[in-house]
Amino acid sequence: MEEGRGPGAVTEYGELEPGGIHCICELYECPPALLNDEQFVKQALREAVNQGMATLLHEVSHRFHPQGVTALGLIAESHIAIHTWPEYSYAAVDVFTCGNRANAEKACRYLIRALQAGRHSLRKLSRGAELGGAAAVPQPVAATSQAAII
Amino acid sequence: MEEGRGPGAVTEYGELEPGGIHCICELYECPPALLNDEQFVKQALREAVNQGMATLLHEVSHRFHPQGVTALGLIAESHIAIHTWPEYSYAAVDVFTCGNRANAEKACRYLIRALQAGRHSLRKLSRGAELGGAAAVPQPVAATSQAAII
Repeated sequence: MEEGRGPGAVTEYGELEPGGIHCICELYECPPALLNDEQFVKQALREAVNQGMATLLHEVSHRFHPQGVTALGLIAESHIAIHTWPEYSYAAVDVFTCGNRANAEKACRYLIRALQAGRHSLRKLSRGAELGGAAAVPQPVAATSQAAII
Repeated sequence: MEEGRGPGAVTEYGELEPGGIHCICELYECPPALLNDEQFVKQALREAVNQGMATLLHEVSHRFHPQGVTALGLIAESHIAIHTWPEYSYAAVDVFTCGNRANAEKACRYLIRALQAGRHSLRKLSRGAELGGAAAVPQPVAATSQAAII
C-alpha cells in the first residue's frame, strides 16, 4: 500500500481535493436530431470538459437502437455523463468535479446551451461533505442507510 | 432523423424508460488498500452491475498517481461511477439506472459492502421526473436555472 499523501491530495493532475460538486441536470425540449447524433453528443461532451476547465482522460460512448446515446467522460477531476432519449426530447446530464479549478456548473451550463434545451433543471450536490475538504459546503450529508428520493 | 419510438422506449436492451433513479453514495472509512487497487475497483464495478441487474456495455478506468482510482461503467440502463481517494479512505459512488428492471440502490448497497465502508450515506434522486414516466416519483424537480447545493 502506498503511503498517504496527506491533505493536499496532489496527483499528477494537480491538487484534487476529495469530494467536490456534482451537478445533476435535466434537459427537456431538446431537438431530437441533436440528441440522436452520437458524434454531436461526443463533441458536446468534449467542449463541456473544456468549458468546465477539466481534463479529459478517457471517453466512451454508445449509440442505442433504434435511438438514444450515452457518452461518458472520465476526467482527472471525476466524470461527466450524457444520456439522451431523443423520442422524449430529453437528456440526463451530470458532471462531478473535485478540486478547486474545474467547474461542474459551467460544464452543465454549456451543455444546456449546446443541446438547445427549452427547459432545464440543475441540482448541485456536495460530495464527500463529511470529509470537511475545501469543496465541502456547510450542510452535512446525513449519514443514513436509507434516504428519501429527492 | 429516425422516427420516435413512442412511450414504450424500447431499445435492443428492452424497455428503458427515460429518466429513472440516480443513487449518490458517499463511502467513508474504507480500507485504503482496496481503494487503491484498480483491478479490485473494476471487479467491484462489474459485480455491482450484476447485483443491480443491469447490463454492462463498456467500461473505462484510470489509476492516478501517487494514488486514487476512477472506474466508469456504461450500462444499457445509464451509468455507474466509482471514484476513490485512498488517502482519505473515501470513495464517491453513483449509479443511475433507467427502466423497470435494473436497481441502482442494490448496486450501491453491494459497493458499500465490497469497499467495506465503515460509514456511508445514500441519496436517491429522481431523474427526468417532469417527463412523468414510470420511473418518475411524485416530487417534481423544480425547473429552476439556479439550485441550492444540497
